[in-house]
Amino acid sequence: MTAPSRTTVAVVGGGPAGLLLARLLHRSGIDCVVLESRDRTYVERRQRAGILEQGTVDALRACGAAERLDREGLVHDGVELRWGRRGHRFDFPSLTGGRRVWVYAQTEVVKDLVALQLADGAPLLFDAEVTGVTGADAGRPVVHYTHEGLPHTLACDYVAGCDGSHGVVRRAIPRGRLRTYERVYPYSWFGILAEAPPSGDELVYAHSPRGFALHSMRSPSVSRLYLQVPNGTDPAAWSEEEIWDELEARLAVEGGRKLNRGPVTQRAVLPLRGSVTEPMRWGPVLLAGDAAHLVPPTGAKGLNLAVSDVVLLARALAERAATGTAAALDAYSSACLERVWRAQHFSWFMTTALHTEPGQSPFDTRLQLARLDRLASSPHAAAELAANYTGLPLT
Amino acid sequence: MTAPSRTTVAVVGGGPAGLLLARLLHRSGIDCVVLESRDRTYVERRQRAGILEQGTVDALRACGAAERLDREGLVHDGVELRWGRRGHRFDFPSLTGGRRVWVYAQTEVVKDLVALQLADGAPLLFDAEVTGVTGADAGRPVVHYTHEGLPHTLACDYVAGCDGSHGVVRRAIPRGRLRTYERVYPYSWFGILAEAPPSGDELVYAHSPRGFALHSMRSPSVSRLYLQVPNGTDPAAWSEEEIWDELEARLAVEGGRKLNRGPVTQRAVLPLRGSVTEPMRWGPVLLAGDAAHLVPPTGAKGLNLAVSDVVLLARALAERAATGTAAALDAYSSACLERVWRAQHFSWFMTTALHTEPGQSPFDTRLQLARLDRLASSPHAAAELAANYTGLPLT
Repeated sequence: MTAPSRTTVAVVGGGPAGLLLARLLHRSGIDCVVLESRDRTYVERRQRAGILEQGTVDALRACGAAERLDREGLVHDGVELRWGRRGHRFDFPSLTGGRRVWVYAQTEVVKDLVALQLADGAPLLFDAEVTGVTGADAGRPVVHYTHEGLPHTLACDYVAGCDGSHGVVRRAIPRGRLRTYERVYPYSWFGILAEAPPSGDELVYAHSPRGFALHSMRSPSVSRLYLQVPNGTDPAAWSEEEIWDELEARLAVEGGRKLNRGPVTQRAVLPLRGSVTEPMRWGPVLLAGDAAHLVPPTGAKGLNLAVSDVVLLARALAERAATGTAAALDAYSSACLERVWRAQHFSWFMTTALHTEPGQSPFDTRLQLARLDRLASSPHAAAELAANYTGLPLT
Repeated sequence: MTAPSRTTVAVVGGGPAGLLLARLLHRSGIDCVVLESRDRTYVERRQRAGILEQGTVDALRACGAAERLDREGLVHDGVELRWGRRGHRFDFPSLTGGRRVWVYAQTEVVKDLVALQLADGAPLLFDAEVTGVTGADAGRPVVHYTHEGLPHTLACDYVAGCDGSHGVVRRAIPRGRLRTYERVYPYSWFGILAEAPPSGDELVYAHSPRGFALHSMRSPSVSRLYLQVPNGTDPAAWSEEEIWDELEARLAVEGGRKLNRGPVTQRAVLPLRGSVTEPMRWGPVLLAGDAAHLVPPTGAKGLNLAVSDVVLLARALAERAATGTAAALDAYSSACLERVWRAQHFSWFMTTALHTEPGQSPFDTRLQLARLDRLASSPHAAAELAANYTGLPLT
């Protein structure tokens, strides 16, 4: 594919944020080009999140990208939290006035958006590695990239940095104009994919004296499970039996069933951290998704924040194109950041409520249990959990 | 006053817990004797808490100890929290279905209970220092104490340890039967009493980049104010002007008024810690109030927990006396501890939401602000705050 040398919006990054932004812009009649540094196979296999909020599903449906999601996605009306060897279910629709979540892997969202983009969308280039952005300070940004071994430039009105936490676009903003806030949690997640039917219909988040565990699923035949492990853990050091035994011990409830076991097909250790870079706009440079913020995965907010960012961004760019006013564009950063900090707080809440800190005192363990007990005894506390988990409406 | 050498319940400690317990027992026709180590003047001047929950007021009313409270106590229908130089009021009756709190100093509660006890209650001895409890393991406890320079003994069926965090009664329980959980917060409160009319009608809890501050009151002419200070701060090292300037800086809101200033009549620095000793009963030995647990003062829960403990204890002892069954007595410890841990969690929540940790990261400050912002934007979060602040019903 040959890309034009000029467009309205250069979208850097072909993950869910960039692809959805391109689709939304295309449907508003705004030219854009998507530049993705990796190849299509890699992008479509990158394991990431798997929980879509109500608002994310609404956004995908609104742009015609939810056909397979609506057919294959698993609708979840609740989650279970476990502590003290007892399970407590939180029913989303009754606690939130009808909101729910969908289990549908990020890889599937990406596949759907890639297919739509290639079929009827704006140019999408794989293996297009952005090396820098110039001219942003003068309001005439040019994106420099290599494609099939040759250097190219793409002049544009706006550059959307959807290129993740190690992205290049952010560097176009002068040092000193950005501030990054960061928190490193003192533990990691050891995640596995297993060829085993899920051991239950819903997600289970477990607090246990041995540490946190999460039972999740990718499909009716594939389980996705996580264990809290110390930072720096080598995933190869665990045998499959050790993994299953540990999951079973942490997820155990009185009178519960054993887990369905099966071959472990993928394993990885991911650190837990939160970060926020502010502001998310500098002149014609706009950041979205992981390029601007990371959350620990416990609240399942990363992908959903990326989606809400680009929905707001597409709306602001469409308003600008249609009316010439920049009010929504000027409000983009603050509107996103309000949601981002809300999600950081909820992710912190879920993380610290369920994980065990290294050297945690017995007092703090009892405090955790009191905090969790309250979720079971107070309808307000339960409703607050459900509202945050299913995601705040995108106003 | 000469005390009997035998009674049903020896109440050790003449603070609000011991005095209220004695009154409740007396009204149920159960003999008791109250032994207080300090003199009456000291006890009636000891500065402590000043916020009474709905349930505490209900308990005082039910035993005829609320006549002056109902006349002089200040009914508060809400509190204000401040952050980001803006105030946010939480209206208790509308958030809780009619519950409120009263501002009425613990010293006044003690005066009222002492007067009632001396007028028509069980024996109350001041300057009666308990030196030990023997025979508890055999179910025949004897309290040893000195009074007017002479040693005495008081044989009893039950010993109620209402003697505070440094109490003697707890030592009657064998080492190894008790477990203490503890958390020391990394800051203290510098509290002052000032001859100045309160600068507002309600309590104000302020988060600020300079640290926490609290505006409170004892009466229409006396203000009670607190500043977060580093542990080990010398209260004498601050001039009155420095105190008022710092309070004003931390409590400031956009367009707000200055504080009413006046002479500082008392000043003290108190550390913030939480502790819980379990169980609260061992055979005939029963612990109540500070003898079993301490909370940081931010949630205003210390006095109120002491009251709920002794209400449950008096009820259990009355049931035992009336019916011979010990079910309520057997459930005493677990019933109290459930409330205690709820209060520890709420106190932790209020404390960590509003105070600045030494070396706190900018990320964590933003997290605090997101947590506080949610109280203003979510009715469920506000209702949860109000329910905890006004106190859970005593079932």
